Amino acid sequence: MPTITAVDVIDVRFPTSVTQDGSDAMNADADYSAAYVIIRTDAPGVAGYGFTFTIGRGNDVCVLASRLRAATLVGLRVEAVVGDLGGTYRMLKSDSQLRWLGPDKGVEHLALAAVMNAVWDLAARLKGLPLWQFLASMSPPELVDTMDLTYLSDALTREDAIEILQSMGPSRDARLEHLSENGYPCYTTSAGWLGYADDRLRRLCREAVEAGYRDIKIKVGANHEDDVRRLTIVRDVIGPEINLMIDANQVWDVPEAIEKVRDLARFAPRWIEEPTSPDDVLGHAQIRRAVAPVAVATGEHGMNRVLFKQFFQADAIDVCQLDSARLASINEILPVYLMAHRFGVPVCPHAGGVGLCELVQHLSVFDYIAISGSLEGRVTEYVDHLHEHFEDPCIVDRGAYVVPRAPGYSAKMLDESVARFTYPDGEYWRELVGPAYATG
Amino acid sequence: MPTITAVDVIDVRFPTSVTQDGSDAMNADADYSAAYVIIRTDAPGVAGYGFTFTIGRGNDVCVLASRLRAATLVGLRVEAVVGDLGGTYRMLKSDSQLRWLGPDKGVEHLALAAVMNAVWDLAARLKGLPLWQFLASMSPPELVDTMDLTYLSDALTREDAIEILQSMGPSRDARLEHLSENGYPCYTTSAGWLGYADDRLRRLCREAVEAGYRDIKIKVGANHEDDVRRLTIVRDVIGPEINLMIDANQVWDVPEAIEKVRDLARFAPRWIEEPTSPDDVLGHAQIRRAVAPVAVATGEHGMNRVLFKQFFQADAIDVCQLDSARLASINEILPVYLMAHRFGVPVCPHAGGVGLCELVQHLSVFDYIAISGSLEGRVTEYVDHLHEHFEDPCIVDRGAYVVPRAPGYSAKMLDESVARFTYPDGEYWRELVGPAYATG
Repeated sequence: MPTITAVDVIDVRFPTSVTQDGSDAMNADADYSAAYVIIRTDAPGVAGYGFTFTIGRGNDVCVLASRLRAATLVGLRVEAVVGDLGGTYRMLKSDSQLRWLGPDKGVEHLALAAVMNAVWDLAARLKGLPLWQFLASMSPPELVDTMDLTYLSDALTREDAIEILQSMGPSRDARLEHLSENGYPCYTTSAGWLGYADDRLRRLCREAVEAGYRDIKIKVGANHEDDVRRLTIVRDVIGPEINLMIDANQVWDVPEAIEKVRDLARFAPRWIEEPTSPDDVLGHAQIRRAVAPVAVATGEHGMNRVLFKQFFQADAIDVCQLDSARLASINEILPVYLMAHRFGVPVCPHAGGVGLCELVQHLSVFDYIAISGSLEGRVTEYVDHLHEHFEDPCIVDRGAYVVPRAPGYSAKMLDESVARFTYPDGEYWRELVGPAYATG
Repeated sequence: MPTITAVDVIDVRFPTSVTQDGSDAMNADADYSAAYVIIRTDAPGVAGYGFTFTIGRGNDVCVLASRLRAATLVGLRVEAVVGDLGGTYRMLKSDSQLRWLGPDKGVEHLALAAVMNAVWDLAARLKGLPLWQFLASMSPPELVDTMDLTYLSDALTREDAIEILQSMGPSRDARLEHLSENGYPCYTTSAGWLGYADDRLRRLCREAVEAGYRDIKIKVGANHEDDVRRLTIVRDVIGPEINLMIDANQVWDVPEAIEKVRDLARFAPRWIEEPTSPDDVLGHAQIRRAVAPVAVATGEHGMNRVLFKQFFQADAIDVCQLDSARLASINEILPVYLMAHRFGVPVCPHAGGVGLCELVQHLSVFDYIAISGSLEGRVTEYVDHLHEHFEDPCIVDRGAYVVPRAPGYSAKMLDESVARFTYPDGEYWRELVGPAYATG
């Protein structure tokens, strides 16, 4: 009977700021990073991998918090941990002293996400199933038992959750067959980072259309004249048929967002993403009423299920962009998917960063086969970098994620990547860039 | 011209869990702690002191985050830092990599609070004024320049803020005179911690009434029959005239809160505090409509100004209980006070913990003389422990805070207390309790 012998948490940072990948109106110089968790056991080959995503400085704070969260796992039997995934989550979450630092938000919650992502990866690996299929293998009551429904009963009860999952059961196979043939549709953010020059923007948009993308996202919000010029270029290249999404990364207040989006509406964007503070439910509702028919999307900074509950209750958003490394793993993510379904809001998960695409492909597949049963208005984010560091990288073909088939949550990084980009002692940071840069 | 030579951040923990001080329905075993910040300069006697408050484990995470936040202060001229308190705040907050971990919430925001509390303390000390008087010495535009009004313009503009402060200017002196004579009214939470036995509860309530308190708060929420029994005892001791507040510390969901508070309404509580998730604006609004005339109070876990904006906009609360070590110091606290005034909601700040009473006395004095101009419905929390560790402890007399007169924000702990309770190397943790307990 294997036992958990250690939980390693490693500070891994990739120097993406050097190439301006990931640059937007709020984040000029992101170094995509992970607080990377490895659950080790005394059984050969039995381990779980997970992470939370950060953009550089402060990743060490997440590492420390993840170590505190994970400490109680050491010494437990693997079967006890993966056999009661709701109980494990509640045990990790039950530390009332750590709860004070949130609750359910910020660094402590990111740490819980990192650790529980690794626990779910371990559980799926042990069954030899990709995560989405592991979820699908559980009965509705069993799956609902893993969910954190605290504070949700005015929007989603345990009975509601079971009923949704049960009602979608009989028709699952047909939807899985569809996905196996066609993949899950995605859009690309890789063309439109804010730091890219106009020529590069033009070339990347052309290449994206040629690669089969029907949806392209462009960063806006730093300077309005630049936005108008860039969006003119983009529409010129992609034509009127391809969907164009715009993303302001929280730079506006409510009145400014309304003013700016009304002006940019001439480029017929499908949605405006993160028009204002990610915490402002009432602000998003106000913006949504004012800028229709442009849709309002948010969620990559959505801190927890209680915030999403309110976005749905207030009719504040058209698109839910939950984040797989900010919400506290499957235990909290599935309740948000279920609420979104009840309120008729499509979930188009946030991805990119490092490893987020690898995680969200599982969520999108499970949503389609087992929760929403729909692809309408749904398109999952895809960003084309850092996949080379993963053992089981996601595959995108003609604008769609290929259904993942390897066991686990696709969260395992290559050992050599982890070693090279460990901060500050990995080879990259120690030698190639030098100690001056690495002081962080 | 003095320069900042170092910012020390120290993990200080007091073993309050041993005596069950601070026990409530959510927090059974709090060890009141501080990530304690000392801004050191090269001028003799010139230093600033501040902290954020935690309840034990995870205080080290706040310490690490505070060190990251504070690093950019080292080497700056003191005059530049305290001469532009808005600019200093924006500089510390502008790190977009750290922003990702929030934004404006959780550990990173607690760290910003800790550092900026020390900066404000330093600024007031340099002027030789208690913090409330330092604030009062600034002109309205100068003071508003220090405020973080980001994302607030749909509720409070810069012009609104200046106008409120200006309109209260002429009548300030009379109100200060009133406070100097009578103090600022407070209530006690010390009588009703959940872990106290009935006899102790009875005795402490009697003593509180004898000491002059007109308002007493009792913890509820763990077990309804216990709540009924305890509140029967309390009403029996304090009679019908003394105000009784009840505090559930977030244990209920929305329907349960409504059911429980409707039943406890027979004890005529003045307010129900933290009936549900601190993030649930719409949930509080629903509870408030359902339990009136019992008032709804929340805010000690209110993460930032955007959340409070929504509480006000949604008519969700009757009492705002902002926290001086969770909001990012004066820069964020004053905008919340100004919004509360605009929306007609009294602020009764959260206190207790370690050092929070020392801080909030300054806020309450400034609110009365310069913002709300009213004491109606206002009563500041007071908890009677750990004051002996402060150099300038707050003084409460006949149920009222005596106006503080020493320079600074009253945040400086005694050197010997810091040394003794530093975790895990201070004398208390090392020797008296022993290493087994100190593993955290």
